[in-house]
Amino acid sequence: MNDPIYRYEYLEEFALAIFEKIGCPSQQAVQATDVLLKADLRGIDSHGIARLSGYVRLWKKNRVNSSPDIRVLHESPSTAVVDGDAGLGLVVAPYAMEIAIEKARKVGTGWVAVNNSNHFGIAGYHAMMALPHDMIGVAMTNASPLVAPTFSVERLLGTNPIAVAIPADKQPAFVADFATTTAANGKLEILQRKNQAAPLGWVQTRNGKSSTDPNEAKMGGALIPLGSDREHGSHKGFCLGAWVDIFSSVLSGANYGPWVPPFVSFLDPPSDPVGKGIGHFLGAMRVDAFRPAAEFKTNMDTWISRFRIARTVEGEDRVVIPGDPEREMEELRRMEGIPLNPQVVEDLKALAANFNLVF
Amino acid sequence: MNDPIYRYEYLEEFALAIFEKIGCPSQQAVQATDVLLKADLRGIDSHGIARLSGYVRLWKKNRVNSSPDIRVLHESPSTAVVDGDAGLGLVVAPYAMEIAIEKARKVGTGWVAVNNSNHFGIAGYHAMMALPHDMIGVAMTNASPLVAPTFSVERLLGTNPIAVAIPADKQPAFVADFATTTAANGKLEILQRKNQAAPLGWVQTRNGKSSTDPNEAKMGGALIPLGSDREHGSHKGFCLGAWVDIFSSVLSGANYGPWVPPFVSFLDPPSDPVGKGIGHFLGAMRVDAFRPAAEFKTNMDTWISRFRIARTVEGEDRVVIPGDPEREMEELRRMEGIPLNPQVVEDLKALAANFNLVF
Repeated sequence: MNDPIYRYEYLEEFALAIFEKIGCPSQQAVQATDVLLKADLRGIDSHGIARLSGYVRLWKKNRVNSSPDIRVLHESPSTAVVDGDAGLGLVVAPYAMEIAIEKARKVGTGWVAVNNSNHFGIAGYHAMMALPHDMIGVAMTNASPLVAPTFSVERLLGTNPIAVAIPADKQPAFVADFATTTAANGKLEILQRKNQAAPLGWVQTRNGKSSTDPNEAKMGGALIPLGSDREHGSHKGFCLGAWVDIFSSVLSGANYGPWVPPFVSFLDPPSDPVGKGIGHFLGAMRVDAFRPAAEFKTNMDTWISRFRIARTVEGEDRVVIPGDPEREMEELRRMEGIPLNPQVVEDLKALAANFNLVF
Repeated sequence: MNDPIYRYEYLEEFALAIFEKIGCPSQQAVQATDVLLKADLRGIDSHGIARLSGYVRLWKKNRVNSSPDIRVLHESPSTAVVDGDAGLGLVVAPYAMEIAIEKARKVGTGWVAVNNSNHFGIAGYHAMMALPHDMIGVAMTNASPLVAPTFSVERLLGTNPIAVAIPADKQPAFVADFATTTAANGKLEILQRKNQAAPLGWVQTRNGKSSTDPNEAKMGGALIPLGSDREHGSHKGFCLGAWVDIFSSVLSGANYGPWVPPFVSFLDPPSDPVGKGIGHFLGAMRVDAFRPAAEFKTNMDTWISRFRIARTVEGEDRVVIPGDPEREMEELRRMEGIPLNPQVVEDLKALAANFNLVF
């Protein structure tokens, strides 16, 4: 049985209507919709319209401010700290990235730490904002604590993704965007829905034993940092997740570690916060602050072309250049539409009914 | 049988004498020695005095310039590109990091890409230079191609390490410093010397099959990116290694990917270079360009303390905070001396004889 397919424009119109219904100013509703649906287009289904009702539930609990007064708290020529005023990360992060880009235009690079925000969709969206300006973009965020550091049984970190977008000339841009865990939480959600086992090394039980049950994190267990176990470098995945946590939140004044407010509305945020909301860290570097942009982009073409033609192991037809699968998916889905899981469709129908809309 | 132990001061004096013998100006010889021996102190034996004869062999082949004219090729308020003039990375990288720190002092952050350099010792040394200034330090470098991208059988990337150093107040600094492969090459060298097997997931054969032979990379095989295989996220380790390669060398104008000159002097650099030497990328961010330094460092104390007391899995007594093992090792070795592998001792004796010195 195939999942029902929806045209991008249909989903866009619906998401926009919902964001407006909860009180987002028009321009912010457009921005939030654009970030949210970019995930569906790029094939990162866990971060797209499937999350729309989750954002609405947070708004109902007064944990999302649909009309935030986002502002700069502090700045230097190449840095800023932004207070998201509890707004949607989908709106706050692009606001902050624009500041990073503007600073890069003036002094070569711009780095913006954000506090008092919420989940920002896919990290890649924000990093890619730098590309049309011939800049390199960087985006990271912390998230609900689901991940245990190496040797621990406590959930102290989020899946804390990092995205890096680097422009090329004739080749498409290099766009890496990945959770710093062995597997993204979205992949576990897919296995949960299908009632399938996870590979060992993705999750651990409440006692810290590797497990194949994708539901472990709901039963006191945890996700595992990239590397899977100490022998295969999970301490490096822990370093990465910690780095993202500190840049996003200790630098900005947001909550970090186990104090990060959970995304799900049925869990309350910790009663002893160490900062405000969740945090992001966004950066832009003007390529020609280092060397002429044309020269850089020609070399990026050489880099990408060389890796693209690398000899493969038997049974694989290509080396995947970061960003290729998502770009190809976007081309396909813009033409052929976006398949939605039936559970997501039900969820959106209920959401529509709630606001006297139709889905 | 225990390895013979040498006092730090003895090794320091010897390394300094060698760097002076090959023609390093006095201040550069001191700097190179300090970086090199920091690796031995911190327990990263593969990057310390064990490499001294390797640097000398590169100098003999005219691939290392012992008296380089290091200079800034291009700059903006927050960025610079440095030409290392084929100098020792041990000297070039600290020079570049000083520029990054100076720029951070003025405009909040400083980012320096370096070309025409050589191996720079441990990445952590350079990142940690930021700490006394209440700055966050970042250091990365590319290296001899030993690593195959996911799905490939070709060695196209180095072990490309990343280091991030973050100051705290009462707690020691957070210092992550790790190769972007499942296992650092130094760990494989140790297994080679002991004639022991490697865990599956560290290396692959020339056909791309996972192998336990630590010598695979010398027989046409390759090291594997962090993650070990596609199912466990090796494509993320590939993204990390690629990111380091591009920031270090495409941004600076150095060689990247398979064009990076090999560290071993018996292999010639590619005859069709795409840039100059190897590349590094160094950064410094002034903490108070984001929020007051005291506030930041107090929160770092909270972060570190919370992770330090995390409940552990049975059989483990603590969660390791990045930087702890190396700092503890340094305290121990400063007092009790540095053990050297007998092969390394033989190598240093031969080196000494070459220059009419005694070891």
